[in-house]
Amino acid sequence: MPELLAERALVGHEIASRVRIEIDGRGDIVGVARDAAEAGGEPVRGLVLPGMPNLHGHAFQRAMAGLAERLEPGEASFWTWRDVMYRFLARLTPDDVRAIAAQVQVEMLEAGYTSLGEFHYLHHAPGGRPYDEPAAMSAAILDARRTSGIGLTLLPVLYTSGGFGGAPPAEGQRRFLHDLDGFGRLLAWTADATRDDPDLAFGIAPHSLRAVTDDELVQAVALLDALDPAAPVHIHVAEQAREVRDCLAWCGRRPVEHLLDVAEVGPRWCLIHATHMDEEETVRLARSAAVAGLCPTTEANLGDGLFNLPEFLSAGGRFGIGSDSHVGVSPIEELRWLEYGQRLGALRRLVAADERQPHTGARLWRAALEGGAQALGRPVGRIAPGARADLVVIDDDLPALAAARGEAVLDALVFSGNQNPVRRVMVGGRWRVADGRHAAREVVGEAYQRVVRRLV
Amino acid sequence: MPELLAERALVGHEIASRVRIEIDGRGDIVGVARDAAEAGGEPVRGLVLPGMPNLHGHAFQRAMAGLAERLEPGEASFWTWRDVMYRFLARLTPDDVRAIAAQVQVEMLEAGYTSLGEFHYLHHAPGGRPYDEPAAMSAAILDARRTSGIGLTLLPVLYTSGGFGGAPPAEGQRRFLHDLDGFGRLLAWTADATRDDPDLAFGIAPHSLRAVTDDELVQAVALLDALDPAAPVHIHVAEQAREVRDCLAWCGRRPVEHLLDVAEVGPRWCLIHATHMDEEETVRLARSAAVAGLCPTTEANLGDGLFNLPEFLSAGGRFGIGSDSHVGVSPIEELRWLEYGQRLGALRRLVAADERQPHTGARLWRAALEGGAQALGRPVGRIAPGARADLVVIDDDLPALAAARGEAVLDALVFSGNQNPVRRVMVGGRWRVADGRHAAREVVGEAYQRVVRRLV
Repeated sequence: MPELLAERALVGHEIASRVRIEIDGRGDIVGVARDAAEAGGEPVRGLVLPGMPNLHGHAFQRAMAGLAERLEPGEASFWTWRDVMYRFLARLTPDDVRAIAAQVQVEMLEAGYTSLGEFHYLHHAPGGRPYDEPAAMSAAILDARRTSGIGLTLLPVLYTSGGFGGAPPAEGQRRFLHDLDGFGRLLAWTADATRDDPDLAFGIAPHSLRAVTDDELVQAVALLDALDPAAPVHIHVAEQAREVRDCLAWCGRRPVEHLLDVAEVGPRWCLIHATHMDEEETVRLARSAAVAGLCPTTEANLGDGLFNLPEFLSAGGRFGIGSDSHVGVSPIEELRWLEYGQRLGALRRLVAADERQPHTGARLWRAALEGGAQALGRPVGRIAPGARADLVVIDDDLPALAAARGEAVLDALVFSGNQNPVRRVMVGGRWRVADGRHAAREVVGEAYQRVVRRLV
Repeated sequence: MPELLAERALVGHEIASRVRIEIDGRGDIVGVARDAAEAGGEPVRGLVLPGMPNLHGHAFQRAMAGLAERLEPGEASFWTWRDVMYRFLARLTPDDVRAIAAQVQVEMLEAGYTSLGEFHYLHHAPGGRPYDEPAAMSAAILDARRTSGIGLTLLPVLYTSGGFGGAPPAEGQRRFLHDLDGFGRLLAWTADATRDDPDLAFGIAPHSLRAVTDDELVQAVALLDALDPAAPVHIHVAEQAREVRDCLAWCGRRPVEHLLDVAEVGPRWCLIHATHMDEEETVRLARSAAVAGLCPTTEANLGDGLFNLPEFLSAGGRFGIGSDSHVGVSPIEELRWLEYGQRLGALRRLVAADERQPHTGARLWRAALEGGAQALGRPVGRIAPGARADLVVIDDDLPALAAARGEAVLDALVFSGNQNPVRRVMVGGRWRVADGRHAAREVVGEAYQRVVRRLV
């Protein structure tokens, strides 16, 4: 039975010293003891944190980071970015997606993410014909995960329409489409493929209110219920101001309002973005106990806008973070700019902190651990018996962190400097990153470069 | 005569191939040739960029990064942060400042900054008594620079008042104060100490309209004119909304408006922040040819607000970047979030790009090179004969940059991922960073840790 003896570790809300962490052969934590006196166990220098869940990503988009920053005639918006993205993905094969997914997963692990929600919508061959093996793209994602070792919740996407109310899909969306029967088969395949591996899980992702009808949304959840009534449901919602206007024009209600009306949104749900909510939507979403899936670097890159964090937290709302388009792949930068965006909006400091949790960095880190774990439907995000042994070792001896004591080290982690302090990373009891480098970094990086050099 | 043969280099507005860079014994570039055919010269793999000027920083604040993120009773603002900062600096000695300055300068070089404007206001012993050597703190900054090798424009600060119109200074400000005679002596010392070293320069920094009267501002510039009528003048202005209200209450004009009325603001001037400007101020500042000194990570950390970049650029405005309080020390993150903040404000993409310079990352990088060099009053920021040999070598073979070609590599540099791609850094013809590490990283880091551990 592997056993670690951590110099310091985040246990519950506290940075504890000399923490013994017992891990069973399956990769679960089975014992945690603070102030461990005796020797024994592998000594781990530094600060051990629960690995951060990355609750939202589209793997293939990693390869177009930086390629959509050139102004074409006209104004640049989310929608012109989406056109670039559709052109980019038009040529991708399952082999390409496997290579890109492995690269971004390796980057995630080196940055301190140990689990991922893959919101997977690129299903079919160019033109929209299913592959001979219809789940070939899903299989590519799972193959990548075998190389990287990241924990994964695979969320096959239902996409049927090109706009609110069942508008016909556009040409660029044909690789995403299923009817409910086809989606049901993909979902069954996904459930099967993720069964029996404690580092894998599944759920569904009706893409957005733009891409499924209300009926399809309800039926997709029913398909999932038949397999696992607790498995997660993710959906993009209210990312863009235009989306809110279009939704109002279609049904007279705002997107989050409409979603909360037509679906039984509860703790298994994760609403990605939820950027544009009025006060009532904000409070209703918070009270639903669903998770808001915030993706600050992507939401900034795409000019989406700022989430209403203060009111959402006041109402008891839960959130986690996602790297989404992977223009940034760092939980530290993601949380830093979640808070900084709020400060720029409110013209004050320490927006996420409150009297009970006065350390801003610590509060953000813990909230994202809890919300991320809930959204991924897996026992991660904490160092406690019953949780997976997903651990990140921070070098808290770095100059940037040297001045901080206790919880303040999490403030320094988020708000002091730009060097990656992650030294070692364990997923499900197995070390994947040592001395800041994933074991497969070179091989995966070379395969990735071959793909992107061919694509551009 | 040292000679480099760069695989790729940013020459003018273009990424050129096989660039021969000749450097004389003084550290100046004396020759640049593209498509160099013959062998000879030290081969440099990767992409060579002009080093980025960091036009604004307060070295000692590096050591409190992350320590002011804890909520105290009441609302957290710039002003409560300033109280924490005053308490923090109360105990610093010149030895402390030397160690902290060396640390932050090493971090800057490793991140790709090759020159710095040190806006230096911590002058005297605790309580406000001058040191036996009155310029002891300035000397500490210059000592640090001897260790790090960064190019430095030392800007001694004139600070006489605690608020607009000559209000008396507060207790926490006593270490900053000079009368004009004392300031004149410090300025003469600074001019002397920076003479004859081509990597050093000097200017002045009247702290802000809160800290000097209009008369003192004009007289400080006259003192500088007597030494060098082209040397730079830096001033904090319009950082906080409250500052604008206080200024209006005092003189009936907004801070930038007032400054432009009372001083002959021109190309030698650098207005730090200039966050809160109305349309007329924005256009007047742009037309003055002064540089706006933007510090996006600090301005976000302090909840200052967003600079009006689109109108400023439309009016031909010049800007550079500074890491200011050093909560972030990376030109990449600084430029990324300069643009991202704009996108979040305007709810659109590619705000800094225009028809003539459509690549957002390239445009931001080049503008910050030019504006930074102007603000620091030194021949840096370009790879051209007559400029200092301040060079940064980027590993453009990294997966994150592999897909980009030509100018798009600067888009990828700014908008793709979080790994530091800086491999080698040269200042004034001398390599200071190799394989991503400054030669003095260990020694400087250990000295820094001893200081901060004593302080907290």
